[in-house]
Formats: sequence, structure tokens, C-alpha cells
Amino acid sequence: MSTSNTQHDLALDAIRAVVGEPHVHRSPDALGHYARTTGTTGTTPTAIVCPESTEQVQRIVRIAARHRLPLYPISRGRNFGYGDANAPTPGQVIVDMQRMNRIVTVNDDLAYCVIEPGVTQGQLADHLQQHFPDLMMDCTGAGRDASLVGNTLDRGFGHTPYGDHFLHTCGMKVVLADGSVLDTGFDAFANARSGRVYRYGVGPFLDGLFCQSNCGIVTEIGLWLMPRPEAFCAFFFSVDREDDLERVVGRLAPLRRSDILKSAIHIGNDLRILSSKLTYPYDRTDGQMPLPDAVRCQLRQEHGLGLWMGAGSIEGPADIVKATKRQIRKALAPIKPIFIDEKRYARANSLVSLLNRFGIAQSLAGRLAAIRPALDLMQGIPTDEPLGGACWRLPQPLEPDFNDPLDTDAGLMWVSPVLPMTGEDVRRVVDLVEPIYARHGFECPITFTLINQRAIIAITNIFFDKSDPTQAAAAEACYDELITALIQAGYPPYRTGPRCYPKLQKHAPELFQLSGRIKSLLDPQNILSPGRYIEPAPAKTPQSAPSTPINTD
Amino acid sequence: MSTSNTQHDLALDAIRAVVGEPHVHRSPDALGHYARTTGTTGTTPTAIVCPESTEQVQRIVRIAARHRLPLYPISRGRNFGYGDANAPTPGQVIVDMQRMNRIVTVNDDLAYCVIEPGVTQGQLADHLQQHFPDLMMDCTGAGRDASLVGNTLDRGFGHTPYGDHFLHTCGMKVVLADGSVLDTGFDAFANARSGRVYRYGVGPFLDGLFCQSNCGIVTEIGLWLMPRPEAFCAFFFSVDREDDLERVVGRLAPLRRSDILKSAIHIGNDLRILSSKLTYPYDRTDGQMPLPDAVRCQLRQEHGLGLWMGAGSIEGPADIVKATKRQIRKALAPIKPIFIDEKRYARANSLVSLLNRFGIAQSLAGRLAAIRPALDLMQGIPTDEPLGGACWRLPQPLEPDFNDPLDTDAGLMWVSPVLPMTGEDVRRVVDLVEPIYARHGFECPITFTLINQRAIIAITNIFFDKSDPTQAAAAEACYDELITALIQAGYPPYRTGPRCYPKLQKHAPELFQLSGRIKSLLDPQNILSPGRYIEPAPAKTPQSAPSTPINTD
Repeated sequence: MSTSNTQHDLALDAIRAVVGEPHVHRSPDALGHYARTTGTTGTTPTAIVCPESTEQVQRIVRIAARHRLPLYPISRGRNFGYGDANAPTPGQVIVDMQRMNRIVTVNDDLAYCVIEPGVTQGQLADHLQQHFPDLMMDCTGAGRDASLVGNTLDRGFGHTPYGDHFLHTCGMKVVLADGSVLDTGFDAFANARSGRVYRYGVGPFLDGLFCQSNCGIVTEIGLWLMPRPEAFCAFFFSVDREDDLERVVGRLAPLRRSDILKSAIHIGNDLRILSSKLTYPYDRTDGQMPLPDAVRCQLRQEHGLGLWMGAGSIEGPADIVKATKRQIRKALAPIKPIFIDEKRYARANSLVSLLNRFGIAQSLAGRLAAIRPALDLMQGIPTDEPLGGACWRLPQPLEPDFNDPLDTDAGLMWVSPVLPMTGEDVRRVVDLVEPIYARHGFECPITFTLINQRAIIAITNIFFDKSDPTQAAAAEACYDELITALIQAGYPPYRTGPRCYPKLQKHAPELFQLSGRIKSLLDPQNILSPGRYIEPAPAKTPQSAPSTPINTD
Repeated sequence: MSTSNTQHDLALDAIRAVVGEPHVHRSPDALGHYARTTGTTGTTPTAIVCPESTEQVQRIVRIAARHRLPLYPISRGRNFGYGDANAPTPGQVIVDMQRMNRIVTVNDDLAYCVIEPGVTQGQLADHLQQHFPDLMMDCTGAGRDASLVGNTLDRGFGHTPYGDHFLHTCGMKVVLADGSVLDTGFDAFANARSGRVYRYGVGPFLDGLFCQSNCGIVTEIGLWLMPRPEAFCAFFFSVDREDDLERVVGRLAPLRRSDILKSAIHIGNDLRILSSKLTYPYDRTDGQMPLPDAVRCQLRQEHGLGLWMGAGSIEGPADIVKATKRQIRKALAPIKPIFIDEKRYARANSLVSLLNRFGIAQSLAGRLAAIRPALDLMQGIPTDEPLGGACWRLPQPLEPDFNDPLDTDAGLMWVSPVLPMTGEDVRRVVDLVEPIYARHGFECPITFTLINQRAIIAITNIFFDKSDPTQAAAAEACYDELITALIQAGYPPYRTGPRCYPKLQKHAPELFQLSGRIKSLLDPQNILSPGRYIEPAPAKTPQSAPSTPINTD
């Protein structure tokens, strides 16, 4: 056994004394479980440790520092398609924060909560529904079991006016690599009353250092919640011509820019919807991949889909919702959006059930059922429905209680460039990525999300069957080509998995070198999430004052 | 001459070669000009240098590093009441960026601009009015000559839905202490198209490091602009009972929380308005200070003021503005707000001019004139009007063309705590600060700004006559007591001048120590704005890996 392994054993013994025997896992089964990936190759950890408090995390970090043990904190490990629960390299110790699942506070009046990393979307949604029905949260399509903190630290987004999660955090508790705790913002002051209502505090605003990075372990965040609006109305639209896409973006952009539309609007292609409803029609494609146009067209017709479909929501006092509906109608004309609120949905539902008794309206029933998850997400109710999308290329259909792509051979790699909110940019990105997907044998499911008032995040993804080595190799090649082409065209991704980090570092050298220097300062032994987004960089020698670089080994 | 002075002379010679002879100032007049302060004691710089480009700033920084010359960059130096153009300590070289006043880009479609630090509020407002009438900016009450970048980096705020300036920046160009340039966000990538539309880029979000700090010299920022709304309407209200204050806050808070009210609403007391209209009535107070209640009451009546007065604005499509007016009316009832749009203002103005011909309605004319600056600020048009407020305690009235408090003996110290948006907290802050102001012989002008959906920034300030040493000493004592009391009560300030920095560092030690370590890493010789918010901290020695601390001398 190498010195390093002995060191790691000693460290894990010490950690076991902190968290308790049952909360350190080293069995091959456990290690294998955490090594699962939606990517092509998982990384196997040395152990998994599950602390239950910030204080335990501090002690773990101090032990790790003593023994140079690399730690990889995860919240719930459901970072599907962006690295899952895997550390970037094998041999790290996963710090799984699932036991730290306290909803520390909910402030009803000021509409915020304070939560730990183990708190899931389902847990918070249920808690609010039961105890604070006047508050709502934003959630992503990552399912009920996904962590809110984890998603926020990776700058994920959802479907409501609070769709940009990081933007709606307020104050973080962070364990640093020396075992000390930093409270950011005004909570840096004892007794501060404004720590969860004003983000910046006074002095530099440091929260940004701790997202998409490896500079500390966040053990608590303040998260703003929405007062439940008086009225809610979803809108859906569908267009059939390819160039309707840029037309629609051009028309909705001014409404989003003026903050008339406040929710994150999503516009997806037929493949995005099809992949969430069914798996690849191997029986109809005669071995062909990607999906031949004719079959795609048939499927679209069978499922009553347009080429591009959009959805968004309006919330506020009833008369403002009404006025906003008029604005949307005017902007989209002659495209006719469908507006659906809960009352209308219930009415349609009972009508359809009635018709169903006579054996008609089955397809209507299906369509109604299909929009339920969208309506839920727009109202902050998480659903496991979108997770099925990952399984598009699997040879067999999903089990009905499916909620974890890692239980299957589902391969998934997100490619998610950011672009200015113009029709021209949307068109450029489509024209850039589709041929690359096709060349590698993949369809290109794509969603454009109007994430703020000026930018769109395009979510495209490679679905593949991991059990097929040809598909897996093609997926990697396709991913690499996409990322390079997008960065070169001016559309870097908003978030990535480990496969992309070296490219980010290469193409934005100053930013990542500076981040690396800060990383080395805060974590000189590189024990926190080594390899995550940032590579350590030894301190620069100042021009006229020689100094010894910090030891970054 | 000391070694240090010789070094500085050498450095200034080298800088002169970079920026040109006419742009280095060392005359006693020039030094004196920059040493002026609204505080009690100004600091005199060694020189003033005025670069005209980022490249010149880089060269200046490299020279400064070589010669250990402390640099204090200012944008326009109009940081009144928070340190003005003064460095925290004497003997620094002011880098005045007023020549870097390029409006680099205005993107009409995506509604943003890219500007340099020398760009003033007046300059950008005029530029937009002339070339981009469909765009509007947010501005503060600091006057037409104040810098937008400077205000933004100190996290100042204005009056529109884009009131939080830092929140509406997107991408910064920063010269670091080693002379290198960092472009933050997506502009870290060559050819990025989304650098000005999506703030975070990918990897850690670093912009927060460069506000209220001294970690770099920002030479360019992206700033989001508002599409000019279809309709605009201001609202004003006035209440006469002291406890109406907390009632009004309690009623408006839910509208702000739900984002129905989007602009920064300001609620000020009579003293705030009086101080902007006139100077202290020494002739009616018989040597008494602070203002006796009876005189305050008379003045209030003479000027038709309430005890507390509020103002805000609504913008959007006409029908949404109309619906929002209903919401405000409902929330405030039985308090009756007055709604004024430009049409109504013009109508009132012509009516009043007509009546004035018959010698009536003079007081109405005055009142109409008084709300003009408020209407302007709410529509992003800067005005020098509020600057007069600083002169409250001066023995003589202002010159009509007054626009610089530094030309007078006006003393001004802001005390600006942040509090949760509740009536209870507002009351607590008033009850806490008013007796302290009174005890030191000052009135307490106060404005509560509903700055975001959950927090209020209270702007209170000490107005004093600098030519009166007793007032000046009292101002310092009052300031120190206020800051301590507010921090202890849980309401630290959102922004301060140098006098307060040691208190911030003392009461939030972890945050400022960490910031100090980052400062030492980025600027090991402490040449950039030494003493501004952050004190350098030598690198910590990691527990098990001895390393030499960076030289922070």
C-alpha cells in the first residue's frame, strides 16, 4: 500500500470518529454507486462520508488538510449530464451532504428561506405547500430529489420569474479549506438583521467566488421565495416553419427586455418534446441514426407537435395578468398562443374525461396530461417527468416509476451555449450545431430559454446509449466538436461537466488563471474538489518584490 | 528628500512620459483642489495623473509597482459624503479617469452600453436622448457631473427599476496590480457575443471582487439600459403622523415584494425635503441647534410638507400602468396618493401659469417646480438639484448655479444602514438614530429607499458647517456613535467613507480578513487604493504545508 493510501486510511479513520461509523462508506457497492455516470466514463471515489452539520464539515476539512485528502462535496449528486456525483478524477472522497437537509428558516413575511445542501426540490416544495402556502419556489426539471443548493452553485435555472437561482440567493455559509467558516454578505456581522434580504453586504461581494468553482464548501444558503401571485396563467404556442423560430424570438424579446414577461420562457423543438415522451423508434428506422426526417415528421404529426413550441407564464394581480395576455397576443400575432390557467385546465380535464367515456378524445387526454408537468414547473412544483428525456436512445421503454437516469444505460451530455436574445443569434446557433450533431449520428434536441432580459441559454444535448461503445465514442467526439465550434463562434457554455474544463481554461486564460491563483491562496493543498472548473495556480512573483510562491502541491 | 520621495519623483517622471506633461499635476493648487472634502479633514495627494486609455492605466500601474507608488483611481471624484475624491491616506497619487470618458458602445436592440469611468450621468443621458431616444438609464441624485462607473463600483443606487446599479452591470475590464487586464464574464473569451448580456460567464463570477474594494482598476463596464416604457406615471404621497411611516412601509412592501412595484421607492421626512429647498433658518432659531420642533413644524406648514413623504414610479404598457395604479391606491387607502404623468404635469403647469398672471397660485407653482427634479430622476434624467441639500447648515443661501458642495463649507457625512423591509425595522432605525443626531446637535434628515424586494436602505446624514470647528467635531462624534449603534443593532451600512472602514473590519473580521488575503494576493505591494475598504492580509500558512507568506510590504 502506498504512503498516500496509508495517509488516506488514517484520515478516514479520523473522519469516521467525527461522523460516526455508519456514515463512512467504502464498500465496492457504495463506491460503484457513486461512480455511476450519464457520461461515458465514471470516476470511482475512495470513500463516501456523510456529515450532518457545518461543524462536522469543518472537522472533516481539517483532517483532510492534515492528510492531504482530496474531498469532493456533493449536495445530492443529481448533476445529471454535467458530471453527476462524480469527482473530476478518481480517488477523491465524496462528501455527500444529503444528511444536511435542514430547512433552517422560512421567513413568511420577507419571503425567503435558509436551507442546507441536502434539501431537495421535493422537500422544500412540500414544506411550503404544507406550512407556507402563500410562498412558492422556483425549481428545475432535475426532479424532486435534486438539491436546490447544488443547482444554485452550478448556476442552474428554472421556469418562473425566479428562474435564475444564483440571482435569488442571499448570503452563504462557506467552510474554507483551512476549516474556518465564512458567512458572506451582512451575516459576516454578528446579529445582522439584513443578511438574507440584501445580497452584497458591505465591502467586496464574494458569493460569486463560490459558484462554479472549488474555493469552499457551501453548507447553507439564503434563498428568496416568491409570494404566490394572485393570478397565474401559462401560455403555449407552436409554429411549423423552421424560420418561425427566429421570428418568435424577435417578437418575444422586447416583452422580456421590458420586463413585461418576467418568467423564463422556453422554446423547444419537436425532438425535445419527443424525447421526453418516448424512446428512439428503433423499430421504425431500420438501423438508421440519427432519426430520419421522414420518421421525425411522422412522429411530430402523431403527437400533434409543431416544429418549435414555446411556453411561459404570467403571474401577478388578475388585471395585470390580463393586460399581459393582451401584450403577448399582440406580439405573437398572427401566431395564436393558448392561455391556460388552473381553472381552464380543470374544465378541459372534466370535459375530456366525459368525452373519453364515449371513447373519443383520447389524444386530447394525452395532450392535457402532457402539459401538466409544465404547468407544475411554472408554479414551482417539481416533477420527475423531464428526467425520462435522458433515456431517448435506450432500446426499451422506461419503467413507470423511473426517476433516476443513473439506474439505466442512459447517456447524456449537455451543451449549453449562451447567446444574445436575437433571432439572428438563435438561427446561427441552430445552423452551427445541427450539422455537427447529424455528422456524429445524433439528433439535436434543443431548448432556448430566455433566461434574463437580454440573453438566451440554449440547451442542446447528446442522448446516447452507453451500452453501445460506438454511440459512446461518437458522443465524446460530438461533444468536443460542439464545444470548440461554439466557443469559436462566440457562444461559450453557461455551465459544463469536467470534460469541458480544460477548454474553458484554454479559451479564457486570464480569468481561469486569476481564479486559479485565488484557489491556490484559499486552498494551497488543493484538497477541495480538485479539478472542478479551476486548476490551482501558484502565486505570481510581483515584478519588483521577489516573493516565494505558495506551495500548491 | 526621503528615498520614498525620490522613488515617487522617478515614478512620476516615468508616468509623465506615458500620459504627457499636461496630464500630470503637482501644483499646490491642483493638490489642494483634490484635497477638498465634505468631511472634516481632506487628504492631500502627491500628484494627479490623468490617463486616457486602459493601456495607459496598465503602464502607470507597472511603473507604480516598480517604484511602490500608491495609486488612488477615481472616476469623477464626486463621491460626496463618502470620501469625495480623497484617498484614505495622504501622499497617494490620484489617477483621475476623467479623460477616459468614451461611450464605447450603445446597443439599441439589446439595450446596453459599454462605458469608461469618466462618462458622466449628464453625458450619457444627453447621448441617449440625442441618439437613442428609446433607451433610458438610471441615475442617482449626485448630479450631472457624477460618474456612472464610480457610483456603480460603490454600489450606489437611483430611482428607476434599474436602481441597483451593480445589479445592472454586465462585464468589467479591470487592470490588475501587475498591469495585466482581466475581462470578466464571457468577455474573458475572445469573440464572445454574450459578454454584455449574461453577467456570470462560466466558472466563478468575479465582478463582486472589484466593487467596494481595492483589488483592481476598472476601466470599462457594460451597463444595462432600460427600453423606454410606453407609459410612465409617478406617484407621491404624504402623511402627517409619525407612525404612518411604518404603516406605509408595511403596505407598500407586499407590492414591492411581488414585483408589482419595480422602481426604487423613496420615503423621506420633512427635513430631507427642507434641506434640499433652503438652508438652516439661523435667523429664526436664536442660536439653537438642532432645529427646534416649533420651527420645524412652521417650516413644514409654510412649505406644504407632510411629516413623511413618498415617491415612486410605474412604467410599462399603458394598461399595466393603469392596473398598477389601482393596486397602489388599494394598498395605501385611506392615504390618497397623487399620480402625475408628463401630460398631467404639463396641464397643471399651464393652468398654474395662467393663474399666476392674476397673482394667484404662486405656492402651487413652487410645488410644481419642486417635483420636476423627482420626475426627471424617475425617468433617468440627472439633475444637480439634490446637491444643494449638502449646504443645509451653511450661513448663507446657495448661488443659483451651484453644483459642487466642495466649493463651499458644506459638511456632509452619510450614514446608510440596510434593514429588512418591515415597518418594525423602519421604526427601530428611526428611534435609534434620531436621539443620537439630537444629542450631538443635528437634525436627522432621512430617506428610506425600498431598494430591492426585501430590503430598505436608510439614508440619513449629518449636515454641518465645516467652518465651525464645534460642528465639525460634533459631526465626527455623532458619526462614530451612529455607526457603532447601528452595527450593534443589526443594521450595518451598505457603503461608507474611510472613517468607517476600521469599524467594518472589526465587526466582520472573517469577511475582511479573507478579502485582505485576496487583496495581498492580487496586489502584494498594496499599490492600488491602499486603505480603501480592505486592509491587506499576509497569506496564511497552511496547517501541514509550510509556505512563505507573500511579501505584502
